[in-house]
Amino acid sequence: MFRLLILITLILPFSFSGFAQQQADSLVIRSIYNHSLESGKGYDWLRYLCKNIGGRLAGSPEAERAIDYVYTIMDSIVPGNVYKQEVMVVNWKRGDIESCFDLDLDGQRKNQYSICALGNSVGTPLGGITAPVIELKNNDDLKELSREDIDGKIVFYNDHLDQKIINTFESYSSCGKIRWHGQRDAAPFGAVATINRSLTHNTDDYCHTGSLVYYDSIPKIPGAAISTMDADALSLALKTDPELKLHFELSCKMHEEVPSSNVIGEIKGSLYPEEIIVVGGHLDAWDNGEGAHDDGAGCVQSIEVLNIFKQLGIQPKRTIRAVMFMNEENGVRGGKAYAKQALQNKEKHVAAIESDAGGFSPRGFFMDGDSLLVEEVKEWAPLLEPYLIHDFSNKGSGADISSLKEQGAVVMGLLPDTQRYFDYHHAESDIYENVNRRELQLGAATMAAMVYLLSEYGVGNTK
Amino acid sequence: MFRLLILITLILPFSFSGFAQQQADSLVIRSIYNHSLESGKGYDWLRYLCKNIGGRLAGSPEAERAIDYVYTIMDSIVPGNVYKQEVMVVNWKRGDIESCFDLDLDGQRKNQYSICALGNSVGTPLGGITAPVIELKNNDDLKELSREDIDGKIVFYNDHLDQKIINTFESYSSCGKIRWHGQRDAAPFGAVATINRSLTHNTDDYCHTGSLVYYDSIPKIPGAAISTMDADALSLALKTDPELKLHFELSCKMHEEVPSSNVIGEIKGSLYPEEIIVVGGHLDAWDNGEGAHDDGAGCVQSIEVLNIFKQLGIQPKRTIRAVMFMNEENGVRGGKAYAKQALQNKEKHVAAIESDAGGFSPRGFFMDGDSLLVEEVKEWAPLLEPYLIHDFSNKGSGADISSLKEQGAVVMGLLPDTQRYFDYHHAESDIYENVNRRELQLGAATMAAMVYLLSEYGVGNTK
Repeated sequence: MFRLLILITLILPFSFSGFAQQQADSLVIRSIYNHSLESGKGYDWLRYLCKNIGGRLAGSPEAERAIDYVYTIMDSIVPGNVYKQEVMVVNWKRGDIESCFDLDLDGQRKNQYSICALGNSVGTPLGGITAPVIELKNNDDLKELSREDIDGKIVFYNDHLDQKIINTFESYSSCGKIRWHGQRDAAPFGAVATINRSLTHNTDDYCHTGSLVYYDSIPKIPGAAISTMDADALSLALKTDPELKLHFELSCKMHEEVPSSNVIGEIKGSLYPEEIIVVGGHLDAWDNGEGAHDDGAGCVQSIEVLNIFKQLGIQPKRTIRAVMFMNEENGVRGGKAYAKQALQNKEKHVAAIESDAGGFSPRGFFMDGDSLLVEEVKEWAPLLEPYLIHDFSNKGSGADISSLKEQGAVVMGLLPDTQRYFDYHHAESDIYENVNRRELQLGAATMAAMVYLLSEYGVGNTK
Repeated sequence: MFRLLILITLILPFSFSGFAQQQADSLVIRSIYNHSLESGKGYDWLRYLCKNIGGRLAGSPEAERAIDYVYTIMDSIVPGNVYKQEVMVVNWKRGDIESCFDLDLDGQRKNQYSICALGNSVGTPLGGITAPVIELKNNDDLKELSREDIDGKIVFYNDHLDQKIINTFESYSSCGKIRWHGQRDAAPFGAVATINRSLTHNTDDYCHTGSLVYYDSIPKIPGAAISTMDADALSLALKTDPELKLHFELSCKMHEEVPSSNVIGEIKGSLYPEEIIVVGGHLDAWDNGEGAHDDGAGCVQSIEVLNIFKQLGIQPKRTIRAVMFMNEENGVRGGKAYAKQALQNKEKHVAAIESDAGGFSPRGFFMDGDSLLVEEVKEWAPLLEPYLIHDFSNKGSGADISSLKEQGAVVMGLLPDTQRYFDYHHAESDIYENVNRRELQLGAATMAAMVYLLSEYGVGNTK
């Protein structure tokens, strides 16, 4: 039985092209990996983005510097074929004040807690909020409670990411609703603010930020994240003293939207220039770290795809477009603007790949789109097996490109090993030093190899 | 074609047991992973080994403290079933002096270089060696040279690990001969010492040590490793001034052998107690780091296997033995002593698994042994697929257990993702902080799952 499996695995590639073509593709893919591992520049670009620019939230001067930097790099690779696409972006600023402590019966400060505002949160009134605390697991718990349980209190959501789930993105997804909608769900009960346990698998002192969403019809209360260590400490303090009051102050504020840009560089296809393959990452990054894994990695990997094609002299049959999306973190404005323009211009997007799951060892691709087209792409899997790319089982793509699915594209996300991602995600620890050069460059090569196959063969009716 | 592949993948498990049994095994394996990820203790034990004991070269007081520590932990898991197996070990000490600099024409110190003695190296004479340097790629280059090219010189081997090779152990293996035999090959040409470029893929300032081997018939000259940054610097300095002299001094020394121990803990098999499955790592670790990935990880993962069986109340049909091998790094004395005693006692080893490739995200197993038996084990692969265990393509096992193959065992090595291993291997950077809890515990669960299947079904004629 095992031998039969081997036989079928060997036969598979023949279903999309002949033997000679398969051999030729294997050689091209080998040269792509060789170049990325030996001479790739992505890791150096990432160093600049992290160390010379740092956190680069949409609307910040750092974001604009990042735009200029990637423009310059891309223009050196595909001279004259780089342009900026203007995007109006959400313009939220953290401000200088983020403090949180509890008070004893005499109103004296006791324990300090590490917190940070969630993205898009309103600030507290000047001088902060002082209120009792109710600890819940998550926003589902509210269903069992009445207004008098919550009114005037700070709601403390202390749910843990499920350690048992192998793909950490799944556990993150299931907890994400607390961060997104925790304040929306608590505000109608009279809550004055929400604090949620940081969405990380680690027990440490980092605050992991991320966006929340407000609705016009619901009072806007501040939302913050507390480190996992301090979530445990606060939970313990509440067991000792359920009447404990928390004082916390945030000076964050939503400002007027401002113009910013996606940056797009492309190599025109030689045979089917009207058929477009997007490869991208998002250039904005939370202000508390350096945006190394999230998503400097995805940006430099996408630029590396262009670079590899150029350095190896591979002329793609279809157009390859590297897109640096702006404002993914707290608005997805870049992704939305790109998709809108594509529709307006009646562009034909064959496929889109986003890398936004960290610069770790690549293991496969998230995939979404018409199921027949997705199966077609999966048939190339054996060509990537020598590079340990084996996992095509996850549905999904990337926030910036997912809507291109509606325009008929197969949308994909680079799937790296997910175990360490939430150690760094949206936290101060998301720095260059926590990205490994080989892992990053293997990811870039994996994207370039997939883009090569897409550009050679198209997918579905584009063939 | 793709659907057929899925069908066959689904059918595969049925070839070794019926549907109900496969379902039951899946549930047991799921509970193994759940326990390891949620409640596993390996990461805590690793912290103690690294932070409270640290580097623990055979013959050192630290090695003896590590023996006592793992004995205590194992005895708390399988009380009364832990014992020490005495082993005479190589007893090499680094000493206090490791210095290297070059000299200008006036004999003044110019540039300092980061070097460390290779394990088992003789020291230099007191006061050090001052000699000109010849740079070679590796020991193959000696074939083109004569005694007068080398005589009185320090041979500087400056070969790079091949970045193109996906499995980093392969590139390490092909460069390993420089470290093992560089001085053996250079000494007959009159070389006074050898310095080799550290065996890492990174460009950094860490010295990566590791063993060399002497032969009675060949003069013993000192061997050292230089950091990759300083290898580049020295190479550049030699281009500017080929007459440059290097001064270097090492106070390392080989001492008399001393007694030490393997530590062995076991759970007796309920049906076939005479059939043994070994799971192990090596307890000794280089003195320059904390021995976190190499091989504290393998030790705590092996102890975790016993712990998981006990905590979940799984009674194995065959005997499971966790072995902490001593002196792998510069003698493999523990492994040899274990295999010798197994032979003397006419023990039947069904299989042995060593984890000695770092505590990274697990991806598969190295495998060796009778090819039919190996294929039999591979048929269990689908049961491990949900945990992203997919790579059974590498031949190999572990230094401590490979000789059990001659006694009929299937020998295996846990194969984690290999990209980062040589960042830390044998260097100061091999510390606890560079091991991720989830990755470590996933590896432990993967070993426990494989041990479970081996203990349930045996392999080959043991069934």
